[in-house]
Amino acid sequence: MKGIILFGHGARNAEYIQPFKRIQALVAAKQPDVPVEIGFLELTQPPLEASIECLAQRGVTQVKVVPIFFAPGRHVLKDLPELLSNAMDRFPGIDFEVAACVGEVDAVIEAMAGHAVAT
Amino acid sequence: MKGIILFGHGARNAEYIQPFKRIQALVAAKQPDVPVEIGFLELTQPPLEASIECLAQRGVTQVKVVPIFFAPGRHVLKDLPELLSNAMDRFPGIDFEVAACVGEVDAVIEAMAGHAVAT
Repeated sequence: MKGIILFGHGARNAEYIQPFKRIQALVAAKQPDVPVEIGFLELTQPPLEASIECLAQRGVTQVKVVPIFFAPGRHVLKDLPELLSNAMDRFPGIDFEVAACVGEVDAVIEAMAGHAVAT
Repeated sequence: MKGIILFGHGARNAEYIQPFKRIQALVAAKQPDVPVEIGFLELTQPPLEASIECLAQRGVTQVKVVPIFFAPGRHVLKDLPELLSNAMDRFPGIDFEVAACVGEVDAVIEAMAGHAVAT
């Protein structure tokens, strides 16, 4: 079974999670049979590890991690692979895949440009 | 004259700026008469202050700062207002406006959800 994790940076304020929850709700609406979790690098709960564990407990064997980052920097190129390396040791029955950062996607770039012009 | 600044966090790797340049190019294509600059909080050049100065030198009197952030955290709620407060002292002839974070915008949320599902 497939599962999706929206991987974000995290921040100190509680409202920070709201956009991630909105993405999660839309993804769940588009693919009701695919469990989708949110996991953060730091500061905001839950951490990525907990989201992986949550999917593992639901029987997920393929996890697609979607970096909710504008561009691949240290967090995506170094921190995320390290976290996934540990997860692979812990959950040898799960295959992990990392999608492109959302900020590298044409439709997202277009929507951001539209916002910059419109507001 | 109006101007736009795409305000990003910044990162250590040079490729990080690419998505910002793509947004900038699209905005410039949509509004050729409105100068649009990129400015970062840290690590990536140019800093926000330099972008504001660039627009000031071009005669811009209204600057719209668009936070290329997923959600308002400390950088948008604390660091950005401090930077703009300093800029207002330095450039009293410029009006500053801060748009919503791109991650709070329906079309951006929808595009990110589409990426999570599609890839």
